[in-house]
Amino acid sequence: MTAAQQLLAKAEAVQDQVIQWRRRLHQHPELSFHESNTALYIEETLRSIGQMEVSRPTSTSVMARLIGSRPGKTLAIRADIDALPIEENTGLPFASDNPGVMHACGHDGHTAIVLGVAKVMAENSDTLEGEIRFIFQHAEELPPGGAEEMIATGVMDGVDAVIGAHLQSPVEVGKVGVVAGPMLASPDTFTITVLGKGGHAAEPHKTIDSIAIGAQLVTNLQHLASRAFNPMDPLVVSVTKFIGGHTHNVIPGSVELCGTVRCMDPALREELPKRMEKIIEGITQAHGATYEFRYDYGYRPLINNEEVTRVVAESVRELYGEDALYTIKPSMSADDFSAYLHLAPGTYFNIGAGNKEKGIVHPHHHPQFTIDEGSLLIGMKVFITAALKLLEVK
Amino acid sequence: MTAAQQLLAKAEAVQDQVIQWRRRLHQHPELSFHESNTALYIEETLRSIGQMEVSRPTSTSVMARLIGSRPGKTLAIRADIDALPIEENTGLPFASDNPGVMHACGHDGHTAIVLGVAKVMAENSDTLEGEIRFIFQHAEELPPGGAEEMIATGVMDGVDAVIGAHLQSPVEVGKVGVVAGPMLASPDTFTITVLGKGGHAAEPHKTIDSIAIGAQLVTNLQHLASRAFNPMDPLVVSVTKFIGGHTHNVIPGSVELCGTVRCMDPALREELPKRMEKIIEGITQAHGATYEFRYDYGYRPLINNEEVTRVVAESVRELYGEDALYTIKPSMSADDFSAYLHLAPGTYFNIGAGNKEKGIVHPHHHPQFTIDEGSLLIGMKVFITAALKLLEVK
Amino acid sequence: MTAAQQLLAKAEAVQDQVIQWRRRLHQHPELSFHESNTALYIEETLRSIGQMEVSRPTSTSVMARLIGSRPGKTLAIRADIDALPIEENTGLPFASDNPGVMHACGHDGHTAIVLGVAKVMAENSDTLEGEIRFIFQHAEELPPGGAEEMIATGVMDGVDAVIGAHLQSPVEVGKVGVVAGPMLASPDTFTITVLGKGGHAAEPHKTIDSIAIGAQLVTNLQHLASRAFNPMDPLVVSVTKFIGGHTHNVIPGSVELCGTVRCMDPALREELPKRMEKIIEGITQAHGATYEFRYDYGYRPLINNEEVTRVVAESVRELYGEDALYTIKPSMSADDFSAYLHLAPGTYFNIGAGNKEKGIVHPHHHPQFTIDEGSLLIGMKVFITAALKLLEVK
Amino acid sequence: MTAAQQLLAKAEAVQDQVIQWRRRLHQHPELSFHESNTALYIEETLRSIGQMEVSRPTSTSVMARLIGSRPGKTLAIRADIDALPIEENTGLPFASDNPGVMHACGHDGHTAIVLGVAKVMAENSDTLEGEIRFIFQHAEELPPGGAEEMIATGVMDGVDAVIGAHLQSPVEVGKVGVVAGPMLASPDTFTITVLGKGGHAAEPHKTIDSIAIGAQLVTNLQHLASRAFNPMDPLVVSVTKFIGGHTHNVIPGSVELCGTVRCMDPALREELPKRMEKIIEGITQAHGATYEFRYDYGYRPLINNEEVTRVVAESVRELYGEDALYTIKPSMSADDFSAYLHLAPGTYFNIGAGNKEKGIVHPHHHPQFTIDEGSLLIGMKVFITAALKLLEVK
Repeated sequence: MTAAQQLLAKAEAVQDQVIQWRRRLHQHPELSFHESNTALYIEETLRSIGQMEVSRPTSTSVMARLIGSRPGKTLAIRADIDALPIEENTGLPFASDNPGVMHACGHDGHTAIVLGVAKVMAENSDTLEGEIRFIFQHAEELPPGGAEEMIATGVMDGVDAVIGAHLQSPVEVGKVGVVAGPMLASPDTFTITVLGKGGHAAEPHKTIDSIAIGAQLVTNLQHLASRAFNPMDPLVVSVTKFIGGHTHNVIPGSVELCGTVRCMDPALREELPKRMEKIIEGITQAHGATYEFRYDYGYRPLINNEEVTRVVAESVRELYGEDALYTIKPSMSADDFSAYLHLAPGTYFNIGAGNKEKGIVHPHHHPQFTIDEGSLLIGMKVFITAALKLLEVK
Repeated sequence: MTAAQQLLAKAEAVQDQVIQWRRRLHQHPELSFHESNTALYIEETLRSIGQMEVSRPTSTSVMARLIGSRPGKTLAIRADIDALPIEENTGLPFASDNPGVMHACGHDGHTAIVLGVAKVMAENSDTLEGEIRFIFQHAEELPPGGAEEMIATGVMDGVDAVIGAHLQSPVEVGKVGVVAGPMLASPDTFTITVLGKGGHAAEPHKTIDSIAIGAQLVTNLQHLASRAFNPMDPLVVSVTKFIGGHTHNVIPGSVELCGTVRCMDPALREELPKRMEKIIEGITQAHGATYEFRYDYGYRPLINNEEVTRVVAESVRELYGEDALYTIKPSMSADDFSAYLHLAPGTYFNIGAGNKEKGIVHPHHHPQFTIDEGSLLIGMKVFITAALKLLEVK
Repeated sequence: MTAAQQLLAKAEAVQDQVIQWRRRLHQHPELSFHESNTALYIEETLRSIGQMEVSRPTSTSVMARLIGSRPGKTLAIRADIDALPIEENTGLPFASDNPGVMHACGHDGHTAIVLGVAKVMAENSDTLEGEIRFIFQHAEELPPGGAEEMIATGVMDGVDAVIGAHLQSPVEVGKVGVVAGPMLASPDTFTITVLGKGGHAAEPHKTIDSIAIGAQLVTNLQHLASRAFNPMDPLVVSVTKFIGGHTHNVIPGSVELCGTVRCMDPALREELPKRMEKIIEGITQAHGATYEFRYDYGYRPLINNEEVTRVVAESVRELYGEDALYTIKPSMSADDFSAYLHLAPGTYFNIGAGNKEKGIVHPHHHPQFTIDEGSLLIGMKVFITAALKLLEVK
Repeated sequence: MTAAQQLLAKAEAVQDQVIQWRRRLHQHPELSFHESNTALYIEETLRSIGQMEVSRPTSTSVMARLIGSRPGKTLAIRADIDALPIEENTGLPFASDNPGVMHACGHDGHTAIVLGVAKVMAENSDTLEGEIRFIFQHAEELPPGGAEEMIATGVMDGVDAVIGAHLQSPVEVGKVGVVAGPMLASPDTFTITVLGKGGHAAEPHKTIDSIAIGAQLVTNLQHLASRAFNPMDPLVVSVTKFIGGHTHNVIPGSVELCGTVRCMDPALREELPKRMEKIIEGITQAHGATYEFRYDYGYRPLINNEEVTRVVAESVRELYGEDALYTIKPSMSADDFSAYLHLAPGTYFNIGAGNKEKGIVHPHHHPQFTIDEGSLLIGMKVFITAALKLLEVK
């Protein structure tokens, strides 16, 4: 029995414990930036496992460093721990006891899996080279997110590679997905105020018609997605709010437009607000108006490293065969795991957690969302196998 | 001394009385559709003059019929009697005692002038051929206006011609303005709801983007004024309200647009809502949306009869010479005097009531608006002279 | 018999001569700026009449000064003399002998009328006070027109009033139309080149898409008529030409837009090109393009003087009664008679020349256009009557 | 020495011959659909090799079937053989002797490689299981392309897998690129005629302004790429031609728009013309116009099979190591190899043919384009290795 085989056997042995942890977490969900009790529970669990240097980067998060017996690489594994403002309706015995708050995105599972990995690795740390750093991050669901806050405390200092995973209820348990390159988008937002000049609806010439100008602006902004950037690079610019005017006979002096920009290419993302402002400036000037423009950067686009992704894919093939592996179709969703990937090569993979036969079919953020707990062991095994490879490789 | 000269001399004799009436009305202003006391005061004044059949078409309005000694034409003279929701700030001794309500548009003067005309004519009714019908109309300021309501009671039955006038503070006292043909616009309004399909801002393809469609609609509606109708026919289509969306990341399922349409040509006005709906239908269908469209007709466009206008112009020339006469520049404002003009030939003329030397310069609807009371006698004389001509002519 | 009556009788006496002149002119039409023979014929005719100082401001035009026995005002009367590039199809015995050229707008009639007026007035010049200046102008049909060229030679120096007339086949003979104020528009033109950057249709991001920008420009230019100016002031901005691209797979580097601007208000006309360029600049800058913009002023808007118009109206009333008079509906057409009106008070009136019974119904510029020659005498009489009034008045 | 090793050794042995073939083809280029001499040369070369059933599906193409000693799978290998209308300017001793025609895209190399593969395989056909079918296809450069024409003759009947390759001068020799899934786009084209109603520029209301409508159409068509489809699916809709109008004062009765649509997803491609027509219909109806719409399908999007792509990738790894392999970035270009992939699983891979040190840096379709001939042996080896795997596998 190799070292790896021993670890995988160990993972099986702690499966029940991991399921208990997950249920305990599920029952006591906390909203983003308010994960104090969750963090405390994680900290206590890690301390009870031992071997690790456990710390609290923030009052809502936990870091644990497991340092091997010999020097080597440093690998970070991240779990997100926050819940959502959703009223649970699963009827599970361990359903949320926090009204209006629910682990409806599987973060309870993520946390349990990584605790399980920590337990397995910690109990075999004598064979470990280098360091595994377990990052239990708060506030993935709520911009500006917890990742940047934790990074600011140094959790990524010296890290050579970083991995994380997301349970997926639309994917059957047993499947594991990976993708190299862009996987999730940057969810930026913007607010534009068109400053015209109000007046009577019967005298448009005495006004600068902010509604007509705002309408031209929405239309011209379509060119960002249709003309301005490489059609191979996904981009969405959506104006989601257009508010102006109060009554039938007065042209309002200003209108407010808000919206979302999502893309996956950092260079495009840097260029986009400039192009956007150029359009805003040109259209408002064309009609004699001025403007205010605010662009708020959200999470970075999530871009997986090719090499680390290959390692995870190999791990899945070794554990479960080629058929278990699928290629994730990138999407315009977002995750602040991207912040870690900006600092170290790494990959974010998906773990199937659905089960049509058992009726586990509800989408994420649904009041009846749940997971097939068989996914927890699978997640642990992939993490453990990939971790061994990543700590040995190069 | 001709009959006309006698009447004009009489008008001078009642000038002080007319000024008193105007001040009394000014001091007790009432809002549109609430002119009960005003109407009562007018009724009592008319009854005290005598000779006339006085009635109350509505609780807020008065009609008086002065029937001459011999049969002839029937001429209607209309005065509007309502005030505005404005807090007066003139400091006049007879300023409004009704807080927040003010005769800031000169209707007190209109009423006093026509009361004066009634007094002069009634006291000389033995020389009168035909009938003069005095219409003291409520609610000119507030759609749907009082004119249609009064007409429905029969005030225009049998009328051969109708005249009315508006005091104008931007015009110096001593001037009288006329214009044949279109003078004021129809103030219609509309509400459009674009019914799309809401969804996440990152997935526009799963939505029917009501904001993007609404913006195209505003832009395409510009064609109504720029392309669809004769450029010689004045037309305004203003979208004054565009309301859609609540947040940065959700494309709303619908947006609401409201606005104003003003024009002067009845044929254009009949065609316009059809052309408008065609654009709404085409644009929404183009992008897979549906719509609701509501078009509310306001007052008719005010179109002066050429012949009656000439008679008033001649009256002014005779009374005050060519220099006193000016041609009114038509505007996109509105007045429900148009309802009477729809039923009988007539004209609406302007009576200068400003006086720069006396500081009477504030625009209508201004808290310091007032009139030079010298305008009251001028108004009476023009009405009397024109009335004699109109009752005799053809 | 008054002097005026004598002149009108004289006009009747020369009617046949005038008809002959008209037919002679009709038979030998010449295109704008090529009226050499026409001018020669007019010159010879004027010289044969005698009494006048005849000169040739240009090789294609004629001026004749009839100076009265006593000093007084100077009145200019203008006739335009050019024909159109139309193949005549009237079958008249005096139809055009110049293939492809036709007097299809009545200028032959205008010239004959004014020759007739000259003859009548010259033969009675002893009773004339002041001066009548007859201007036979070339090239009314073709911008930049002949009026400015003649004015540059001094034909308007010292002129106190100017009148001219146009025969109208859509109006029955016997009617004469006048209108004070704006009557015809300025016919300006423009050319815009949008300078983008060409490239492959599959790579819009490597181009600056001149077609997409040109389309936005057309759409934004609609705001000039719908938003930017007083809806009471007629305005047309028409893009009539949009040329860009050659094939399916190449985005062109530039597109060319041409079009027309027509309006009647000089202040609006001065402001418009600035507003237009502002829109062009804003829209092209919004999308990274540049532009070239050329605005060519055509004839001025034709604005009749109120006083002189009244004089002509009075003349018509005296000659033919109120019913003969109609008010011209202003239109977006153009005439360089406006150049004279810019320098002296005056009016341009219409002389009905149609006759449904005789089948004289074809519109101007039609191959079968003709006039009821009864209109010639009417025109002469109105000119003579108005001239007497204008030379005496003030 | 394994069978595979023997074949690869053989490939090296024929390398010089392959280079001679390539030069001979390069010197005598023929345009698309005119490749008669090229096809004859290929046919003769194949017949001289022997062992194969050689046929001419069209007068401009060649097919050769190499049937193994034992039954098995059928693998098709395609080379395109046409040249471009470009004047060569390489100065090579074997430069084009056909003025204005040049192998400026490497098809000479593709043909030579596949002839080399045929020679190697034919001379070892005793060890072959199944069939290798060599398809020398004409007219890849010119829609509708030669692929569909050849397929119609049956060249793909019974084919289990198909592979092809393209030499790439922007990629250094020694590199081989693959990508699973979408790689190239469908290059469809469209023509839209907006049918309005022409008229004078000063009377827009008497026209249906095809230019204004065409402009709105271009603007609304931007929504196809910006709103209508999944932003993860690349899509370009470019209007490349907008032709309407002849002069400054006439609004044209119609305008013509042409352009390109490129995408990679067959379902999107099926839906797109419907959505496009819906926009065209809606916009034209909105403004009272009608339309004609023609959509011409070009090549299909090129989508590589995941399994076959993996086989080629493995072949490259085995031959040249991981570093030789790169992932192709998909692009909006097109190739009618997609037609074969529509009928059988397969992959299209890229063979680096550039060499900065040797100055082989000019892009495809450039007059100085050329290839590093070392790429020919690499191409042969990858084809041979992959062919062996594909014929054995499953």
